Amino acid sequence: MDPFVAEMKGVILSICPDAKIIDISHLVDKFNIRMGAFLLAAATPHFPNGTVHVAVVDPSVGSNRRPIAIETSRSLFVGPDNGLMVPAAAIDGINHVYELTNRSLMRGEISSTFHGRDIFAPVAAHLACGTAPRECGPEISNYVKPQFAQSNTKGTTAVCEVFHVDSFGNVITNLSQNDLSKLNLKLGKKIAISVGGRRIPARFVNTYSDLGRNEVGILIGSHGYLEVACREKSAAKRIRVRTGNAVHVYGG
Amino acid sequence: MDPFVAEMKGVILSICPDAKIIDISHLVDKFNIRMGAFLLAAATPHFPNGTVHVAVVDPSVGSNRRPIAIETSRSLFVGPDNGLMVPAAAIDGINHVYELTNRSLMRGEISSTFHGRDIFAPVAAHLACGTAPRECGPEISNYVKPQFAQSNTKGTTAVCEVFHVDSFGNVITNLSQNDLSKLNLKLGKKIAISVGGRRIPARFVNTYSDLGRNEVGILIGSHGYLEVACREKSAAKRIRVRTGNAVHVYGG
Amino acid sequence: MDPFVAEMKGVILSICPDAKIIDISHLVDKFNIRMGAFLLAAATPHFPNGTVHVAVVDPSVGSNRRPIAIETSRSLFVGPDNGLMVPAAAIDGINHVYELTNRSLMRGEISSTFHGRDIFAPVAAHLACGTAPRECGPEISNYVKPQFAQSNTKGTTAVCEVFHVDSFGNVITNLSQNDLSKLNLKLGKKIAISVGGRRIPARFVNTYSDLGRNEVGILIGSHGYLEVACREKSAAKRIRVRTGNAVHVYGG
Repeated sequence: MDPFVAEMKGVILSICPDAKIIDISHLVDKFNIRMGAFLLAAATPHFPNGTVHVAVVDPSVGSNRRPIAIETSRSLFVGPDNGLMVPAAAIDGINHVYELTNRSLMRGEISSTFHGRDIFAPVAAHLACGTAPRECGPEISNYVKPQFAQSNTKGTTAVCEVFHVDSFGNVITNLSQNDLSKLNLKLGKKIAISVGGRRIPARFVNTYSDLGRNEVGILIGSHGYLEVACREKSAAKRIRVRTGNAVHVYGG
Repeated sequence: MDPFVAEMKGVILSICPDAKIIDISHLVDKFNIRMGAFLLAAATPHFPNGTVHVAVVDPSVGSNRRPIAIETSRSLFVGPDNGLMVPAAAIDGINHVYELTNRSLMRGEISSTFHGRDIFAPVAAHLACGTAPRECGPEISNYVKPQFAQSNTKGTTAVCEVFHVDSFGNVITNLSQNDLSKLNLKLGKKIAISVGGRRIPARFVNTYSDLGRNEVGILIGSHGYLEVACREKSAAKRIRVRTGNAVHVYGG
Repeated sequence: MDPFVAEMKGVILSICPDAKIIDISHLVDKFNIRMGAFLLAAATPHFPNGTVHVAVVDPSVGSNRRPIAIETSRSLFVGPDNGLMVPAAAIDGINHVYELTNRSLMRGEISSTFHGRDIFAPVAAHLACGTAPRECGPEISNYVKPQFAQSNTKGTTAVCEVFHVDSFGNVITNLSQNDLSKLNLKLGKKIAISVGGRRIPARFVNTYSDLGRNEVGILIGSHGYLEVACREKSAAKRIRVRTGNAVHVYGG
């Protein structure tokens, strides 16, 4: 509904007419840096080498939070210094982080409320058209490194956190395939999970259609993390969880 | 909100950097193959020759439902073998259907929950960049042929089914312009329709603005099918119908 | 959810295969010409010279309202003659307005309900691919000139109107930065606004994060107009206004 995204795209094409612009998501919950970080980290590994990613979840726009560019071994990220881009950038290895200070790469007039259009989009367009990242400004090392919750495995029990509920209602946690394997689960076997003290029977399956009509399942999702799912139904509603909640998984 | 669509686009551009990617819709009701089929059949006739269409309404992902490619006289369709793409492909004539078995055209690692990213997008990208459809796998003839309801005309009465309610609330049925002409309706004349036994006065008009403020109208919609409409209002709410409901039209 | 936008894009690419298509918004309230006009005027100034803008908020489609093309000093607008495109086009100066009558630039069959696909998209595609605007049809001067409300400054009080509430809940008014400067406000100082007779304390700030947790602020938004905002909260809900409401600002 808002014109903001189109304004950024217009700015990009005015500077770099051959840029190919792909939308990742414009439905991140307002001000939810963590959700934005999850989406970026899920999507960016699938993009070609040399892609410039622009990310704007930016509650502190116009304050003294710095605008930055991150250079990894294969791509660039441009956005606010608030941790948003660090998990995605870390996947390929962060080589350099630059504070954006070079005004000649930005819009002539910079508003205090929309750096997406006035700083991030024009800098990203210049980078996409060949400007060297070090032209953006001084290299810095004290950029914000976000602390997202870690999952925890002890014997045959794991405690993890809900990272994201997708639009199907699938519950994506931060328990990696690797950590899950420590629980010694057998495909097809009944196990239990618990949420907020409520114990819920579940089954470890390969895909959604392996589940019975009202059954709760756990499986390895397409990003390599434990997912709680129901068949053609919202698992988040069925087991009553949301982003940030803890989920226990009992293996063995 | 989900990163899925962006992941598919990243995969496509990694394989075929010059691909031009256009979104048809990402708001098909979850698991609603029939609604997806309607949207595809409405949109694809307007695309250029040689377009590769990727469609993912795929409740049985990861089961033994086959991934397929359909070759018509002028375009290609890539997606699940569940009927989703058949009505759209049939418009131009289905020449060949191939089961996708050639792993070299797919992502190295194939998840059990996201074939859109791991099979359909990479195969479509290879096809868009010139791979011959017969390279995808063996030709098959026993692909799923969906049975969608037919409209029915008897004398001056027609029974049809609501195919889709658009975001304006216009009620799109499966009664074609051709079948409607059998009812011998005169433009501007009052007629009647009925829904669930409720008889509703209506008028046969040319366009929305021909209608009075609360009047119900029927007209030939932009896809060549009978549409029930109100002026600047939701006809679906006004006459209380939804997708799948039967509508009777009394002519002559 | 609807296939309409994709149909238009397919038509455009069929005529002008190298067109670069950017979405401005598909979430304008149905039939709300004024909201569409605001979004267009906000976004189009950021697009490159030579852009062809297509706009379809068109409650009178199929009636005798005319289809038009507007030529400004640097871009083109194609859509209905209902005022929708005039505020955006006026920013760069309207040079010529043409009624679209040249059928050879349109779709062979023209529906009475979807001129976006059958008239506006194909004409825009031909213009994007080099057809001269005067080929579209006769020049006209009696096109619809919309009368949108003006803001009003008297001494140190301003009366303005809510133009748009963005998806963050920020309240964007029609009081320009220039008119606001007449009120002699000092950055950081407490002032008052009133809405529907309710007086609300507020503070004039530079950006959202300058505000305390429940504080109401006014600031110059990214389009150069007065905005009422709260920090990470909907100002529209907090002060209970919506589009079209009057806001008083007391300065001095």
